Amino acid sequence: MNAPLPAHLLPHLEPRAVPAAMLEALRAQFGDRCSTAQAVREQHGRDESPIDAPPPEVVVFCESTEDVAAVVKLADQYAVPVIAFGAGSSLEGALLAVQGGVSIDLNRMNKILSIHPEDLSVTVQAGVTRMQLNNEIRHTGLFFPIDPGADASIGGMSATRASGTNAVRYGTMRENVLALTVVTPQGDIIRTGTRARKSSAGYDLTRLMIGSEGTLGVMTEITVKLYPLPEAISAATCTFPSIDAAVRTTIQLIQIGIPIARCELLDAHAVRAVNKHDKLTLTEAPMLLMEFHGSEASVKEQAATVQDIASDFGGAHFQWATTPEERTRLWTARHHAYFAGMQLKPGCRTVTTDTCVPISRLAECVTVASEEAEAAGLLHYIVGHVGDGNFHIAYLVDPAVPAERERAEQLNREVVRRAIEVGGTCTGEHGIGLHKMDFLVDEAGAGAIDMMRTVKRALDPKNIMNPGKIFAL
Amino acid sequence: MNAPLPAHLLPHLEPRAVPAAMLEALRAQFGDRCSTAQAVREQHGRDESPIDAPPPEVVVFCESTEDVAAVVKLADQYAVPVIAFGAGSSLEGALLAVQGGVSIDLNRMNKILSIHPEDLSVTVQAGVTRMQLNNEIRHTGLFFPIDPGADASIGGMSATRASGTNAVRYGTMRENVLALTVVTPQGDIIRTGTRARKSSAGYDLTRLMIGSEGTLGVMTEITVKLYPLPEAISAATCTFPSIDAAVRTTIQLIQIGIPIARCELLDAHAVRAVNKHDKLTLTEAPMLLMEFHGSEASVKEQAATVQDIASDFGGAHFQWATTPEERTRLWTARHHAYFAGMQLKPGCRTVTTDTCVPISRLAECVTVASEEAEAAGLLHYIVGHVGDGNFHIAYLVDPAVPAERERAEQLNREVVRRAIEVGGTCTGEHGIGLHKMDFLVDEAGAGAIDMMRTVKRALDPKNIMNPGKIFAL
Repeated sequence: MNAPLPAHLLPHLEPRAVPAAMLEALRAQFGDRCSTAQAVREQHGRDESPIDAPPPEVVVFCESTEDVAAVVKLADQYAVPVIAFGAGSSLEGALLAVQGGVSIDLNRMNKILSIHPEDLSVTVQAGVTRMQLNNEIRHTGLFFPIDPGADASIGGMSATRASGTNAVRYGTMRENVLALTVVTPQGDIIRTGTRARKSSAGYDLTRLMIGSEGTLGVMTEITVKLYPLPEAISAATCTFPSIDAAVRTTIQLIQIGIPIARCELLDAHAVRAVNKHDKLTLTEAPMLLMEFHGSEASVKEQAATVQDIASDFGGAHFQWATTPEERTRLWTARHHAYFAGMQLKPGCRTVTTDTCVPISRLAECVTVASEEAEAAGLLHYIVGHVGDGNFHIAYLVDPAVPAERERAEQLNREVVRRAIEVGGTCTGEHGIGLHKMDFLVDEAGAGAIDMMRTVKRALDPKNIMNPGKIFAL
Repeated sequence: MNAPLPAHLLPHLEPRAVPAAMLEALRAQFGDRCSTAQAVREQHGRDESPIDAPPPEVVVFCESTEDVAAVVKLADQYAVPVIAFGAGSSLEGALLAVQGGVSIDLNRMNKILSIHPEDLSVTVQAGVTRMQLNNEIRHTGLFFPIDPGADASIGGMSATRASGTNAVRYGTMRENVLALTVVTPQGDIIRTGTRARKSSAGYDLTRLMIGSEGTLGVMTEITVKLYPLPEAISAATCTFPSIDAAVRTTIQLIQIGIPIARCELLDAHAVRAVNKHDKLTLTEAPMLLMEFHGSEASVKEQAATVQDIASDFGGAHFQWATTPEERTRLWTARHHAYFAGMQLKPGCRTVTTDTCVPISRLAECVTVASEEAEAAGLLHYIVGHVGDGNFHIAYLVDPAVPAERERAEQLNREVVRRAIEVGGTCTGEHGIGLHKMDFLVDEAGAGAIDMMRTVKRALDPKNIMNPGKIFAL
């Protein structure tokens, strides 16, 4: 009972059937790893976005780069869409099969291929999830910091240029992918980048792929940076009299260069949701949830500075999570915010904003967004990677009441309009998918979209790679 | 008396004359800002590479993005090459007018357009140099860390994906450019990116342009990140019994996660050169020149840890540069290494390697390169941004003795071959230009080059943007 696709997108999205000959070829090659079962197709035809679309016609479970190349070669031959599928956690409809075609399931490509602890890097198959990766490298004393809310796959995170709570210190997928194995739209296998930390060798095909949402190729193997586990970690929560005060604290600590590792805002609604979902007893007021990484001494020093700044802005109840268990509990609660939030309104769907703005404009943007949502009387909550200038306001809408969804979309448009006006972006980390195609035009301008379109047409002339996403062709 | 272009490149590089009508149109629009004077053309027809090429036919001194767009529109109309020209400090022939055409001089585009100290960013015209930028933002308490040897322009640094001594802590141009104004090959003006710190909004056109060496468009305005000047800075030198010992010290401090800001290797020859050039009295042995940024306490802590590690590897004469003047003197000497090195052999030209390798393989790569150069009896010196795995071995060759250049190129090929073999890159920061086109094929493979070529052909179908560079079309 989700919302249909926006009507103005439909003309671009005529269904493209999988011919019988192609289906036969897939079955011959993949046997029972090729499925047309309704349940399997439906599972690969939805994500966490509030958009409905028809499911893919076929799902192929790939186990190697060569498998993916074989599927794409057939898709190229028959000009049929292919969509890479990982954890299925897109919030923007990025993996919906809007023109039918083949869903390439990468979840069986879940091997760590090579760990290079001495070089602080690891190469994984695209279906490895972020939590699996961290579990499997635990013995090295290293960790992979990028942590979107879901336990997403590294492939999906690369495709959407994902980030999460650690980006303020460690960067996003943009900064943390060193090299890729990519299946091109013609079904060829290429490698981009190297294991060196930097390079000036030709066009940055790695960064061209990162964030392209599967529209230029399928990333099958990914080399990412790792980081030494800090000698000391400490987490703290601090409650503020207003969202404005919490955000102003953040702005100041970024401006003076505190190397804070995580700096997350939760508004009172979000705190209420995680309290309920994770049985916590946090004060239900705007809150910063912070983490400090470094040596024992530097962590203490950072924390003391932040405590000073926070109290200037009326911060109170500064509480330390002193044990690893307490820390994990707090951060797990933060990562559950999305699902915790949904339980504030059982049966609801979530419309989530994802703007990211220059940090000096963050306080006004978050505050106005909050006020507008309150005034609209729509249940919502705010969480934010405020150290990056990125925040999410999640509007909880009853799918049976179309007017609620329309109100949420209207509020979202206002949030985006304001972000672009102050020099920010409509999406900090979720991607464009289907949901933000209009916003991208406003943000990037027709000329930049034309350049994207030219690149897309040149690399994928048959428009088979995840068609219908990011921009209209 | 430089070397000619490699013969196998020449077939791709037929001269393309500027038609009289175009020259007339340029003169009408730009008056005396359009020059065909021999001296002006020659000044725009050479760089720091050891390669000779014919000069451009015309030089236009642009003062705005609109000026650049006007020149490119004419170049598009007449299918004539255009080459953006900044400081002229390319080491790889990136700005040589191998097919003639128009040199677009951007040095008058030297304005800081807007400083956003509260957002830690600044927007500059492409002709602003890195030193000018740091001078003009001094009052903000912020700095721009990227520092290649030359006082390069921000435009040129963007075009080659430059880095320098601070990259180990602050990243390269890849990580530090937020947004661009670009003149496309059709002479249109587009904007890429925003002032937000991160974004998932469509293809990463910013990163596609960064490192494309002017072959996809002319970057005219650039928004870069700035950083708060650290509360405390301290620099130190430490002498080692061997290159191997110095590099192993570096490897270990990177692996344990010391946030060192600069970590530069100089071999004994390089120390001798800077001693002579800058009247210093450093011990003429392999040396690390390091810098620590942070709070007073954390700088002390980092330095103590590094000193411990260094002494494990036989590091001695650990010396602190305690005053800002001493520190500046040391780093100025380091930045002079290129010119200091040339004075070891008056009248010489320099062939410089630029490989960057996974850090675990750095010690063997540097040591073997040094041994091979010694065995070849060719005057040389080594400097390295070893914290990144990047090092330069500069061979000093007598332009009157072609055999010396050939020997240097042969040694360079070996250094590159080894770097690629261990998972590294032929160029960490100088770019491909003309000099490393063959190496790029070995490194990236035919498939990746094909993808680059497809992008180039699509965006610049008339091949007017700095033709003949990076790869053969």
